[in-house]
Amino acid sequence: MPLRLDFSNMMADTLGQAGIRTAQFEGARAAFATAHAGVAARHAAGQLGFIDLPDDAALLAQSTDFAARVAGRYDDVLVLGIGGSALGPIALRTALRPGAWNMRSAAQRGGLPRLVVLDNVDPVTIAETLALLDLSRTLVVVTSKSGGTVETMAQYLIVRDALTRTVGAERVRDHLVFITDPKSGALRPLAVEQGIPALDIPPNVGGRFSVFTPVGMLPAALIGIDVRGMLDGARALRDRCAAADLATNPAGAFAVLQWLADREHRANVQVLMPYVDAFRDLGAWFVQLWAESLGKLRPDGTSVGPTPLGALGATDQHSQVQLFMEGPKDKTITFVGVRERASQGAIPTAAGDGPELAYLAGHSLAELIDVEQRATAGALAARGKMNMTLTVDRADAFAVGELMMCFELATAYAGELYGVDAFNQPGVELGKRYAYGMLGRSGYEAAKAEFAALPAGDARWRVG
Amino acid sequence: MPLRLDFSNMMADTLGQAGIRTAQFEGARAAFATAHAGVAARHAAGQLGFIDLPDDAALLAQSTDFAARVAGRYDDVLVLGIGGSALGPIALRTALRPGAWNMRSAAQRGGLPRLVVLDNVDPVTIAETLALLDLSRTLVVVTSKSGGTVETMAQYLIVRDALTRTVGAERVRDHLVFITDPKSGALRPLAVEQGIPALDIPPNVGGRFSVFTPVGMLPAALIGIDVRGMLDGARALRDRCAAADLATNPAGAFAVLQWLADREHRANVQVLMPYVDAFRDLGAWFVQLWAESLGKLRPDGTSVGPTPLGALGATDQHSQVQLFMEGPKDKTITFVGVRERASQGAIPTAAGDGPELAYLAGHSLAELIDVEQRATAGALAARGKMNMTLTVDRADAFAVGELMMCFELATAYAGELYGVDAFNQPGVELGKRYAYGMLGRSGYEAAKAEFAALPAGDARWRVG
Repeated sequence: MPLRLDFSNMMADTLGQAGIRTAQFEGARAAFATAHAGVAARHAAGQLGFIDLPDDAALLAQSTDFAARVAGRYDDVLVLGIGGSALGPIALRTALRPGAWNMRSAAQRGGLPRLVVLDNVDPVTIAETLALLDLSRTLVVVTSKSGGTVETMAQYLIVRDALTRTVGAERVRDHLVFITDPKSGALRPLAVEQGIPALDIPPNVGGRFSVFTPVGMLPAALIGIDVRGMLDGARALRDRCAAADLATNPAGAFAVLQWLADREHRANVQVLMPYVDAFRDLGAWFVQLWAESLGKLRPDGTSVGPTPLGALGATDQHSQVQLFMEGPKDKTITFVGVRERASQGAIPTAAGDGPELAYLAGHSLAELIDVEQRATAGALAARGKMNMTLTVDRADAFAVGELMMCFELATAYAGELYGVDAFNQPGVELGKRYAYGMLGRSGYEAAKAEFAALPAGDARWRVG
Repeated sequence: MPLRLDFSNMMADTLGQAGIRTAQFEGARAAFATAHAGVAARHAAGQLGFIDLPDDAALLAQSTDFAARVAGRYDDVLVLGIGGSALGPIALRTALRPGAWNMRSAAQRGGLPRLVVLDNVDPVTIAETLALLDLSRTLVVVTSKSGGTVETMAQYLIVRDALTRTVGAERVRDHLVFITDPKSGALRPLAVEQGIPALDIPPNVGGRFSVFTPVGMLPAALIGIDVRGMLDGARALRDRCAAADLATNPAGAFAVLQWLADREHRANVQVLMPYVDAFRDLGAWFVQLWAESLGKLRPDGTSVGPTPLGALGATDQHSQVQLFMEGPKDKTITFVGVRERASQGAIPTAAGDGPELAYLAGHSLAELIDVEQRATAGALAARGKMNMTLTVDRADAFAVGELMMCFELATAYAGELYGVDAFNQPGVELGKRYAYGMLGRSGYEAAKAEFAALPAGDARWRVG
């Protein structure tokens, strides 16, 4: 069965005045029609390339052909990237490979490589990672659309140097692959000059919408993930969103509900809470997508943007759920569940286990985690807290494709509803300029002066 | 140098009207004095045992003696726990062992065991974990204060069964250790009857304040962490908090600033953002502490509770920072930095690297990440967004002890400021009752009926 969105627990029918009224939801149909048309228009104008990725067999083949060509050659794949370049591969590894993939022996991985993602510039981590990997058996994937991402470029220079020392300058190219813009940027000419293979990020696909490009698909293919299944799921979901009909378009309904909850009920915190370990790292991927796309200044100078938050059930019932239950009504919770699980986990009790354990006899972990999901949703609703549930068949490639495309399209719609451009990130420029200024980069002298002119810290406002 | 809190960027001096006014901060001194006295009174009454843990050499010895006794006997330590029982050990492993600890070979770990934490009841994860580990070389640590935590007990029953099949019923006790209440609960009698070693969680220490008990200290000691150094740091920080003086009490200043930001400026999202990979998992530990302690119904029926959020610099500059910069002023950001790092990560450029790379010549990753932290803090302040910075000497045991004790004391103070009991979690009871009811547990028939009587999902509010 396809992905389902069930949002009765968002509505006033269930929640009373804490919920969205039928009239509010019905009234949003027009706004959604406009948003849907806005997305369609940008797509027709050649933007929003992410929508076409499920059909791009040639682009997929870049990843699958490369992976097939190098099969067996590497023990480790090391991705250098940050933002979407890291979050996509990490989410896919967790979702679609057995747990603790990198702890497994080569035999336990069926001979497929480990996947290590360096997503920061902490010098300790990089030193430890380089000491840990056998670079002569490592493929380094450098992902940056512009080739100007300072963190990724700094990582690259250090890893290139280590590779050169390990395998010799002549063989470095055999351990590198770039994923970058087909024409522009700093990595493409390096690739051409030095004979380094390079795969494409289409110019009209931004970093946080790039998981179905080689950014996600190459690392996934290298570790044996069913990338075609992912695109099948993404395509199926996208096709369900062709019409501007909230009754059939799950991404549209999701976007409208979050927008209404924020606007009408000040629910500025929007939680994604799967009850599936495989989807544990999907949260961080969603957080980037939702936060960086919608957290914006509008043309009129007002700020908008709900704050996405990752959680995991049942684990977070012992962490964040107390706040969700009793704290302010400033949140929506979106559960993600599955219709079936690959293991059941029968719970074996024994005679003499006592009443604290005996009631578990005859039950399974699959039953327990599903019951906990429903119980938490019901308890939140009973307390007047908005929640909704996405359900997919199982934690497989098709479902991950459905979920990711659903969130990507919802983000595009939500950008239109909020009146912001969901596809840029101007807010990070100031911090970048300050950093470049402090590093003495040519052309950033003014930024350096501007940073130096910020108010100095006041000793009154300091402890220790 | 001791931990420092620098909060100029929280104040109106720097931020204008988006900041906390001097008068507001000065005015909070009386409220803080009351809060400090309230915490002291509960402590004097024998509650809040977490405050005494740095001095409890006998309790520490339970962990260090056990670890010394079993040294060399196990390849893996498997912790069964949820909430604080899992978040503490995970945070310590990431903070105080080399990165990717569980990926390392036995030789790379100096013969110390891996540390695997099962913090959920997903049947797929448990099946995969049991298939991955050699149980004949595994120590299973079962952590539950009450012995009634359904998730941990279900895990225990499954792992006990697997252990029995692997090592035989007679040897199971050699692979188990319980961490639980000294007297009450379901695990203690099991331990006594079956000769299973059991370490203590003092009755006056709750789960999320338990990291300095065997809950955190035993797993840490087993993998070679300097647990004494942690307690030294915790003690030093605690002793700085003896006086109700906001000028010298860092936990007090932190609590008051967050409370004022929430109350006076509607900053209901409170972000913790280290620029240190080692502190990556400290965020989830802090989230539980802050959320579960402060997200509460007050006696007058009003809901309070800021929403804590984990982030990581520089990584999240490519994810959440766009929202922090341009989104609504509904947040505080607390950076955590270090004065020195164990590696520098010199960036080696080469001739012909082009202007996109050449400006990095002569710089190091340590410099880059520190510059990025200051640039982000400055840019947030320039945009009127509240932020503050905690600085510790380095990512070592002493600093982790300082940070964790600082947050624990801040939580206790904040509970008093918000007028809630920071040490209970009544909000999760309803969901538990519903789950027990659905599982058919005796005594929960009413809960089952109550759940069944909740409004059924409405087909109108469903897509797919």
